[in-house]
Amino acid sequence: MADKLTSKDKNYSQWYNDLVIQADLAENAAVRGCMVIKPYGYSLWENMQFVLNKMFKQTGHVNAYFPLFIPKSFFSREASHVDGFAKECAVVTHYRLKNDPIKNEIIVDEDAKLEEELIVRPTSETIIWNTYKNWIQSYRDLPILCNQWANVVRWEMRTRLFLRTAEFLWQEGHTAHETAEEAIEETDRMINVYADFAEQYMAIPVIKGRKTENERFAGALDTYCIEALMQDGKALQAGTSHFLGQNFAKAFDVKFLSKENKQEYVWATSWGVSTRLIGALIMSHSDDRGLVLPPKLAPLQVVIIPVYKDMETLEKISSLANTMKSQLETKNISVKYDNRDSHRSGWKFNEYELKGIPVRITIGPRDLENNQAEIFRRDTLEKQTLPLDNLPNIIENLLKEIQQSLYDKALAFREQNIRKADTWEEFVDMIENKGGFISAHWDGTTQTEERIKEKTKATIRCIPFDNPQEEGCCILTGKPSRERVLFAKAY
Amino acid sequence: MADKLTSKDKNYSQWYNDLVIQADLAENAAVRGCMVIKPYGYSLWENMQFVLNKMFKQTGHVNAYFPLFIPKSFFSREASHVDGFAKECAVVTHYRLKNDPIKNEIIVDEDAKLEEELIVRPTSETIIWNTYKNWIQSYRDLPILCNQWANVVRWEMRTRLFLRTAEFLWQEGHTAHETAEEAIEETDRMINVYADFAEQYMAIPVIKGRKTENERFAGALDTYCIEALMQDGKALQAGTSHFLGQNFAKAFDVKFLSKENKQEYVWATSWGVSTRLIGALIMSHSDDRGLVLPPKLAPLQVVIIPVYKDMETLEKISSLANTMKSQLETKNISVKYDNRDSHRSGWKFNEYELKGIPVRITIGPRDLENNQAEIFRRDTLEKQTLPLDNLPNIIENLLKEIQQSLYDKALAFREQNIRKADTWEEFVDMIENKGGFISAHWDGTTQTEERIKEKTKATIRCIPFDNPQEEGCCILTGKPSRERVLFAKAY
Repeated sequence: MADKLTSKDKNYSQWYNDLVIQADLAENAAVRGCMVIKPYGYSLWENMQFVLNKMFKQTGHVNAYFPLFIPKSFFSREASHVDGFAKECAVVTHYRLKNDPIKNEIIVDEDAKLEEELIVRPTSETIIWNTYKNWIQSYRDLPILCNQWANVVRWEMRTRLFLRTAEFLWQEGHTAHETAEEAIEETDRMINVYADFAEQYMAIPVIKGRKTENERFAGALDTYCIEALMQDGKALQAGTSHFLGQNFAKAFDVKFLSKENKQEYVWATSWGVSTRLIGALIMSHSDDRGLVLPPKLAPLQVVIIPVYKDMETLEKISSLANTMKSQLETKNISVKYDNRDSHRSGWKFNEYELKGIPVRITIGPRDLENNQAEIFRRDTLEKQTLPLDNLPNIIENLLKEIQQSLYDKALAFREQNIRKADTWEEFVDMIENKGGFISAHWDGTTQTEERIKEKTKATIRCIPFDNPQEEGCCILTGKPSRERVLFAKAY
Repeated sequence: MADKLTSKDKNYSQWYNDLVIQADLAENAAVRGCMVIKPYGYSLWENMQFVLNKMFKQTGHVNAYFPLFIPKSFFSREASHVDGFAKECAVVTHYRLKNDPIKNEIIVDEDAKLEEELIVRPTSETIIWNTYKNWIQSYRDLPILCNQWANVVRWEMRTRLFLRTAEFLWQEGHTAHETAEEAIEETDRMINVYADFAEQYMAIPVIKGRKTENERFAGALDTYCIEALMQDGKALQAGTSHFLGQNFAKAFDVKFLSKENKQEYVWATSWGVSTRLIGALIMSHSDDRGLVLPPKLAPLQVVIIPVYKDMETLEKISSLANTMKSQLETKNISVKYDNRDSHRSGWKFNEYELKGIPVRITIGPRDLENNQAEIFRRDTLEKQTLPLDNLPNIIENLLKEIQQSLYDKALAFREQNIRKADTWEEFVDMIENKGGFISAHWDGTTQTEERIKEKTKATIRCIPFDNPQEEGCCILTGKPSRERVLFAKAY
């Protein structure tokens, strides 16, 4: 059992770091800015991948794999993309090491310098569109609906486990279409897939909207996003879907012969989510005892723990527990019976609370006598003693209830933390003292957006899709505005 | 439909390349030595991953993820490992690019030079053992049974799609144990998992054995391998499992407190298979018409093609085909009904033969009348007309039969191509004119092994596990030998 977690209220950031480490999710690697995703953390990612992969396939996508390396010159082809992505990145300059007999160590072989440097992909639009050029001749070759599960590298100076690391795992969808309409439809489809995943599986309510020009993906005409609110009142961008127009097609000269027999540039989208989602999951539901996981993504849903003094009692409990385990497993519930004699039950309680197992079943001598068990809900910390008859059905329903309850709680929290600000003073007060999303008027210029960010660290998270049109005055400049946008400090 | 494939007999190597390209499996990327794995090729890899991942989990392993980059100095820690792996590799030296205002292009920012160069992992023993150091204190922390699905980079000068590329996808298992016995047991367990996978899923018979000292993994005390024979008589190493002894534990100072309360170095294994298996799959079963895939790994197992002249007939066929499709799908058989009117049935026949779909069902007007369908087996190219009653069961059995038949055929081919050589002349004649595995005596020295390789290009593929002990004389030097070993030219 690890040390006690820092309290969320005391220091949210430290609580997060403690939790990631102590729950065995990830740790900092020996390589600056990189992380090791430990088995328990990786099993969360595997569960997310499994669901997302299915959702991608159901919406017609296929997986493929493109190279890790991108020639430096590719980045220069799309003017805005280069500024956004080709700066802080890992640059491969040589392809061989050799022994230095004098120093008796291995050194870079200067004779093995690459003619053109290679960039470790920070995102793959350029290499993929360079490839699509060969795949697309006519409208018959369209649409192309590819997704890639991959690692990417962005040389971040300040890193935090899962939230911002030099290397991270993600998926990136890259699609090619005949028309702008079709590409926009795809951009929209995928942001909805992400929203459904966040809400139905991660139990995280999200706001769907579009980014301002300033916050758009480098090279996109439009960026759609889902924004979630963390427990400390900061926003987290959980997924993005980009309408890229014909920018990459033009940069890589990807044309197709249309049904009207004309050469036209192809329309593009790209969309992605990453291991960052694990950070969002932690910061949406967890507490001072450790992780709280939604049952649909929990690597283990139920743990059964025996409480006993003598081996005879343990044997009786084990017989009961194993039957219970089988019954639950026939309902596709994942169950572990932890009968290790090397650890006390109190230690086990703490351990599984730390790891966020949604339901704990405890069986002791009195439960044996009375044909009952104690059921503990990780999310609410409630205990109840229940008769064993019908227990599998009760647990099955309880898992559903926990899933829904986590969502409801997170939604209620978010609703309480969306506030309207109509004056600059109100705005500053809310940002500094309340956090959450602030719905405010803005004059629509990047300059004002940047000034607000400088003064308050708040950024425009999105312009919600369902935004009501409303006349108003910009919170900072007083200039006219037609709709409110959502501001927040963000991860 | 692509161009005609080069015939296998005319030029096997060209046939292979043509097939990989034309069947849409992979292509060379814009980055030297790297490949793009296209959706059809990737779906084969996904199917392999799915099965292997399950087998790994059934044998107690969990997945995790370690960094892409390895500090250069890590390679120097294990003396033999550095020679094997830290030579031809991708070296990251800088972490930033910048605009060059004069040339108007992006260049490497010399101010952003890394203090220590990073190597893109060619294999992960070093970074993983550096991590395990923090995970292991006592025997209670053992065993550690981790696997990683990842990309790796080895800067190969001569590359071939799937068989040898600079970047490839693989899995690497890295386990840590209390005792040598336990580690050797694990090494053995995993080579058996690989052999079972090759034989039962890929329908490729393999010979299990150990590598000679010269052919061992750099840093291993023992390397077990599975060796398969390709249709052109060359061998292919399809998977390896290494007993690493305490080499990496010593290099990274990984000790544990034993049950006897003593500090001891941890024992290690590592094991891996890669996208190279796709190359092995192709070269085991395919023919001049294209891919031949074992049903258990085929992305699509059955295709139904209508043959018709008028739309009325097509409608009737479609109704029948859709029923058939549903019936087959309830048996977990993957089926596509290709009713595209844009392509002729002959074109479709060729296309699905090229892609290696195990079973084709054709329905034409006469079949409608007679309540029958034509069944075509991709592997033997046999056709038979069968009544529709009971067709789902027949197809189900046929798929099993094809799976078994592919294995049997490959096994018969291999058995015909294992030959004993007892003189140098025989040996050279077999290598030059017959190919296959040659079972011959060898004096056990690396020097002789190297000389044989220089003279004939044949290498010792393995010393089979079930090798009979037999007195003899080395094929080259005439020195005494106690057992035969298997030589072959290899991929």
